[in-house]
Amino acid sequence: MELLPRDQIAFQRMLDTIRRNYERFGFLPVETPVMELSEVLLTKSGGETERQVYFVQSTGALDKAAQGQGGELPERALPELALRFDLTVPLARYVAEHEHDLAFPFRRYQMQRVYRGERAQRGRFREFYQCDIDVVGKDALSTRFDAEIPAVIHAVFSELAIGKFTIQLNNRKLMRGFFEAQGVAEPDLQARVLREVDKLDKRGADYVRETLTGEGFGLAADAVARILEFVEVRSISHADALARLEALGAGNDALRQGVAELREVLELVRALGVPEADYALNFSIARGLDYYTGTVYETTLDDYPQIGSICSGGRYENLASHYTKSKLPGVGISIGLTRLFWQLREAGLLDTAESSVQVLVTQMDAGSLPHCLALARELREAGLNTEVVMEPSKLAKQFKYADKAGIRFVAVLGADEVARGSVTVKDLRRADQFEVARTELAQALKVELAQPLMEGGA
Amino acid sequence: MELLPRDQIAFQRMLDTIRRNYERFGFLPVETPVMELSEVLLTKSGGETERQVYFVQSTGALDKAAQGQGGELPERALPELALRFDLTVPLARYVAEHEHDLAFPFRRYQMQRVYRGERAQRGRFREFYQCDIDVVGKDALSTRFDAEIPAVIHAVFSELAIGKFTIQLNNRKLMRGFFEAQGVAEPDLQARVLREVDKLDKRGADYVRETLTGEGFGLAADAVARILEFVEVRSISHADALARLEALGAGNDALRQGVAELREVLELVRALGVPEADYALNFSIARGLDYYTGTVYETTLDDYPQIGSICSGGRYENLASHYTKSKLPGVGISIGLTRLFWQLREAGLLDTAESSVQVLVTQMDAGSLPHCLALARELREAGLNTEVVMEPSKLAKQFKYADKAGIRFVAVLGADEVARGSVTVKDLRRADQFEVARTELAQALKVELAQPLMEGGA
Repeated sequence: MELLPRDQIAFQRMLDTIRRNYERFGFLPVETPVMELSEVLLTKSGGETERQVYFVQSTGALDKAAQGQGGELPERALPELALRFDLTVPLARYVAEHEHDLAFPFRRYQMQRVYRGERAQRGRFREFYQCDIDVVGKDALSTRFDAEIPAVIHAVFSELAIGKFTIQLNNRKLMRGFFEAQGVAEPDLQARVLREVDKLDKRGADYVRETLTGEGFGLAADAVARILEFVEVRSISHADALARLEALGAGNDALRQGVAELREVLELVRALGVPEADYALNFSIARGLDYYTGTVYETTLDDYPQIGSICSGGRYENLASHYTKSKLPGVGISIGLTRLFWQLREAGLLDTAESSVQVLVTQMDAGSLPHCLALARELREAGLNTEVVMEPSKLAKQFKYADKAGIRFVAVLGADEVARGSVTVKDLRRADQFEVARTELAQALKVELAQPLMEGGA
Repeated sequence: MELLPRDQIAFQRMLDTIRRNYERFGFLPVETPVMELSEVLLTKSGGETERQVYFVQSTGALDKAAQGQGGELPERALPELALRFDLTVPLARYVAEHEHDLAFPFRRYQMQRVYRGERAQRGRFREFYQCDIDVVGKDALSTRFDAEIPAVIHAVFSELAIGKFTIQLNNRKLMRGFFEAQGVAEPDLQARVLREVDKLDKRGADYVRETLTGEGFGLAADAVARILEFVEVRSISHADALARLEALGAGNDALRQGVAELREVLELVRALGVPEADYALNFSIARGLDYYTGTVYETTLDDYPQIGSICSGGRYENLASHYTKSKLPGVGISIGLTRLFWQLREAGLLDTAESSVQVLVTQMDAGSLPHCLALARELREAGLNTEVVMEPSKLAKQFKYADKAGIRFVAVLGADEVARGSVTVKDLRRADQFEVARTELAQALKVELAQPLMEGGA
């Protein structure tokens, strides 16, 4: 995805908003190199990931491969370096490598591009931004940290203002316990059952019920009924969420532990001021079955469920077992911003951004340029993004340019204005025009620019 | 270069400062994909660049190369994709590709990482940030745009506050005219002479004089004397700069044109408010001889000349002749931020950054957590980056953590404070402590945080 400047400005504002909110919650920035050692990247993965990895070779390495092997490539000679395909593996490598220089719990955010050699198709990108936060503990990490995550998600998407959203919560232990209680104890079987349950939306309850009671699974009809009831649970309020947990009963250890964790998370999410309309239990959410072990999160736009989850993640048991002997449990989420941006644009949910340029200083004739430059300097020193028309042209053309570029204010400094010590300003957003003393211009524009934030702010 | 969080914060602040100032001058953001087609990247370059390029291949392409060729690589089968090695070639491709959607003169900034397969050595990086601005015209671009560039450089480095700097200006036409007047007319010979002149610092004037009058060059002694005098020119004030230009005399066409351009640039740089102590003529600056055709820029730190130029660029005749028939003259500069950051740190010029976290809310006992989370929420809503200690521990330990992490304010909300509706705050920077009403806390901290900017601001 390559954007024209006005779209890039909109994209950049979203990146800034996410970063600002990540920092507001005390997460620290980390950036890692785009290349990792192939052996590091491929440690955890199965063949699927390897098929999607981009390998990197310098000319020297290419030559060496060609010459050293007498022109033949050994069957599995993978290049030494590859491009990261997510930010989790680099985080694991980073934490393991810098373990002794980091303070735990380590709270980091990372917003960089990742690379996947996917087949090019609409809305799928081979290079895309991920915006991740994680809290990584050493040896242990309290469930309390799980409660901060929904507060961060809430802050981010409230400020992004892309519509009503719901943060959906579940807990893997609770799920495991519940399935065990239905006689589905074996992890592999649980995974297979969940994959069938995932087809509810597409194939309907009858299909799923038949499959699970059928030959391949052979589950009891009443167990399947309870499972189908369970995965339909969505709470409608904070009290309802607590009641839903209560209703699960005592059950087994895993269920009890999952319920206790989720209850604590819910209580602290409320203490953090997340409105109860913005979060809910959803017992159908599983996420990466072999990775997450506790709380799991998904976030959906209420009016655009077809977009799917726009921010997901969860609690994991051990981040970096491949790279260090320390046990590093953590909890984190990821926003795939490139895809989200594309989807929002497709859905018509993104307004065309105003330019990052706030003021265009026009030029009546070549002789006035020094005045215009001095005015621009005053505006810039006051913090306003200012462009000067450097070559004289018809004023109408300059206005047309500002309009097309999405620049809100156009300043005219003609001979009359210079004589009066004033500037004439046209506000293209309000279709309004006013003359103001030059010494008061910057302040006047800043008041105008702050206005919409006060009117429509969150 | 991979940084620990506190260094990453310092780095991020420099990036932000550069971006803010680029936007202040009306430049628009562009980001391009990290991969370009190899044929695009290698169009312009000679063998040197190709040796430094990183090529990219998906697993599929690797397999295909191995199988399709029966395990043999054809001699020059370069992979289809490669990583960008600068931001200029991607800009040329971007402008050519989106020519009909862009408004000219097109002012863009781009701050992304680039890749060069250099031998790893101290201070040389294979992955580094470039922060570029360019103004690209269609068919023509007034010299006036050349004058904005020093104003941008000035704004950036004033705010970065890394010491007194000088923006050094020269003009390639002026140089060409001067050398022609000394009987050094042929471009290749000019280039060879300049390479010798470049050795002045290392080898001394005698060595260079002997070389240029010697067999290989055979220049007249008085011509060499004038050349050595010429390249030593550094102006000491605005008036001196103009006088130096005047002193060059009428000369030939190229000289006259160069002088006229440089004079216009100097006058407008002054109109833009750049202090005359911060810019100077330097007739020894040549920059990429086959690329730049007019104004050229270098920027040096007065107290650290050994660091070399920290921001360079110039005016070029045609950006994208390989990709479009349109003539696209432009002017631009680049800051290699990764290397600059490394050099500043080596020179001890970078203070350890305070954390991006501004307030740490401590926790006395587990029961107080909801109070702490509510307080954190109030602070975050007021715009303060706030971390909460989620697991109770000894207060001394929490203070020690804040100190080590570079967090300035530590908020204590004990039972006494809750009863009084107040918060006790320790300011670790001022080694000061005060109690304040909880409703006034955020405002009080914001006033404190704004303080140093008022005291020591630019």
